[in-house]
Amino acid sequence: MPTFEDVRKAARVVKGAVIDTDFDPSRTLSKLLGADIWLKFENLQFTGAFKERGALNRLSALDKAARARGVIAMSAGNHAQGVAYHAGRLGIPATIVMPEGTPTVKVENTRALGAEVILHGAMLEDAAAFAVAEGTSRGLTFIHPYDDPLVIAGQGTIALEMLRVNPDLDTIVVPIGGGGLIGGIALAAKGLKPDIRIIGVQAKLYPAMYNKIKQSSLAVRGDTLAEGIAVKAPGRITEEIVRRLVDDIVLVDEADLERAVSLLITIEKTVVEGAGAAGLAAMLADPARFRGRKVGLVLCGGNIDTRLLASVLTRELARDGRLSRLAIDIPDRPGQLAKVSAVIGAQGANIVEVYHQRVFTDLPAKGTELHLVIETRDRAHLEATTAALKAAGFGVLMKGQMAGAR
Amino acid sequence: MPTFEDVRKAARVVKGAVIDTDFDPSRTLSKLLGADIWLKFENLQFTGAFKERGALNRLSALDKAARARGVIAMSAGNHAQGVAYHAGRLGIPATIVMPEGTPTVKVENTRALGAEVILHGAMLEDAAAFAVAEGTSRGLTFIHPYDDPLVIAGQGTIALEMLRVNPDLDTIVVPIGGGGLIGGIALAAKGLKPDIRIIGVQAKLYPAMYNKIKQSSLAVRGDTLAEGIAVKAPGRITEEIVRRLVDDIVLVDEADLERAVSLLITIEKTVVEGAGAAGLAAMLADPARFRGRKVGLVLCGGNIDTRLLASVLTRELARDGRLSRLAIDIPDRPGQLAKVSAVIGAQGANIVEVYHQRVFTDLPAKGTELHLVIETRDRAHLEATTAALKAAGFGVLMKGQMAGAR
Repeated sequence: MPTFEDVRKAARVVKGAVIDTDFDPSRTLSKLLGADIWLKFENLQFTGAFKERGALNRLSALDKAARARGVIAMSAGNHAQGVAYHAGRLGIPATIVMPEGTPTVKVENTRALGAEVILHGAMLEDAAAFAVAEGTSRGLTFIHPYDDPLVIAGQGTIALEMLRVNPDLDTIVVPIGGGGLIGGIALAAKGLKPDIRIIGVQAKLYPAMYNKIKQSSLAVRGDTLAEGIAVKAPGRITEEIVRRLVDDIVLVDEADLERAVSLLITIEKTVVEGAGAAGLAAMLADPARFRGRKVGLVLCGGNIDTRLLASVLTRELARDGRLSRLAIDIPDRPGQLAKVSAVIGAQGANIVEVYHQRVFTDLPAKGTELHLVIETRDRAHLEATTAALKAAGFGVLMKGQMAGAR
Repeated sequence: MPTFEDVRKAARVVKGAVIDTDFDPSRTLSKLLGADIWLKFENLQFTGAFKERGALNRLSALDKAARARGVIAMSAGNHAQGVAYHAGRLGIPATIVMPEGTPTVKVENTRALGAEVILHGAMLEDAAAFAVAEGTSRGLTFIHPYDDPLVIAGQGTIALEMLRVNPDLDTIVVPIGGGGLIGGIALAAKGLKPDIRIIGVQAKLYPAMYNKIKQSSLAVRGDTLAEGIAVKAPGRITEEIVRRLVDDIVLVDEADLERAVSLLITIEKTVVEGAGAAGLAAMLADPARFRGRKVGLVLCGGNIDTRLLASVLTRELARDGRLSRLAIDIPDRPGQLAKVSAVIGAQGANIVEVYHQRVFTDLPAKGTELHLVIETRDRAHLEATTAALKAAGFGVLMKGQMAGAR
């Protein structure tokens, strides 16, 4: 089991080689949620995630012979970049195993950091098993992404930095995947300040650590936006630390994660991946729990696929009533689209998509449904626009209302 | 004309009340462009833009009577927020005139900062004329967004901060709208370091200052992503400073602006608006010009509409060959879509949209064009997928190639 002293040692090891990232208050989020909210910008590490800390602490502990033989890790994500980057810096040969089908840009980025990349296996589990076996046969040290005392101690350095900047924090909210991040943070924070509250967050779709700690058996599967914490098997060491030191674990749904990513973009102008937004998502899901508290949120990573980000932003517009799908009953005669679009245009709303639904409708054979996607300034503007359509004699139905719509 | 000394005075005035934003090197952008690139994060000011500096310097110079009467400004954007926020802080009543149809969220944000908002006029010009008239009749001081010596001096404080952090800079690249930002920066930077190069950037669609300085008459109009620098009439004072102190002005097209916004998201995890990306866009458009130089870029604002941002990110995916539209000739018989999608699926590509084009096609009456939007990992993967379709006997055409495709 790693100790508080191990975290302090790790802080000396990583100093100057990882970024002591900003830890700043957010006035706007604080006002929105009724708490004093501070953000730790680990998404601004060189490789875009906190993983560098644990990887560097682990690599630095290798003896000369082990360094010469090299290391191996399995990851298609932030751990791969963290290991590759710091191994490269230290002159340690690194092999990274990634599942087949990993986007070329990730493979190329990892190679650009000096690592050898092996594509193997259809699933993460296959790639992991291969990496362990390959490490054994080639004499390479396997760098575990979380269940390793030195890795955990490395991640804990984040909490030392947070409490140095703001010793008054009374709560830290931390995403949980394998548990390395929260393990290190709990060790460090409770070591400095025993009465601080540490709250873990998991995605509702992947409550693996939650199941262990709460002795529940919620399903662990699905496509979560927070793929960085979508871990099926948390670590043994990390589980033990969480059991001892973490005050509670909360679950967040996908709509909360999406809203958190979007708010960090619009308010903080910062890009986080789903896992990096989990702490804010937990506060959005249950603001009462945090009201009046001094809360540190760890924005643990910023590596989000741009297509996913674009889709999250667009879905949030739909939830805010700025992008909507309407079905409008019209007689199938010339001039109807002109009438409808004149009403919408007069309201200052923008028509984004149009199609006519002639076959699959309950209307009489001579009627048709006009389906529109329209853009409005906000929900009040949307309501004014649909009211104007109704006042002009058209039947209007809102289609495709989304979970979490406001 | 403001002087270097005015900028120094402004620095004392704004100290502690605006953020001395980070000025950090970007290793990844530096490598990409072959220069030593530093980024000034003015997008992280409280209101998301540098405009606070000039506004605060101007407001602070008002005497007691003028403060009691209050101020008025016209802006639907960053200047509105900057004036409203600092007037509120200083207890000065502020009236902001915005054109009708300004998104409610902007109106509400400005009101939340304590300002009175008046919606007037269909266009910015109408709103501006109204604000000046209203100011005169109500005895309010009109706060000009750029053509004011105190506003210009306030913006110049940015350059003092940049050169304090990195005195070795030899070039600063600055977006130009009305010219307040580049005017202040040129005064301050050349005051400290006479041989530093100051390069201005305008959108190709809005080359107003460029036309004045280069005595050209390029068209000034259109919908640019960089609406923050879409100014038709640059200032008189700012024009004079630019003529004396700015080394060159370059123009960037929309594809460069879009790519710059997208790179700052993916590499720096930071959100900038179109104008805020103009400096990087200028480097992307002509890397040779900056090669080997020590370049400071001012990311002047981060207030980009999320729908616009989502659209920029999606268009960049299309330019990178990750999102593509294909037209595939198929006989109009059952089972054809199954065959095509089996080939695409076997390649690991993802089908996003499907439709059949039966009428408007040059094929024989029994043929049809299947239009698909597909998602691939990168351009090589796209090419492998189209090659597989051709090998399976289908005619394939790429549709809708975009300007700036890579």
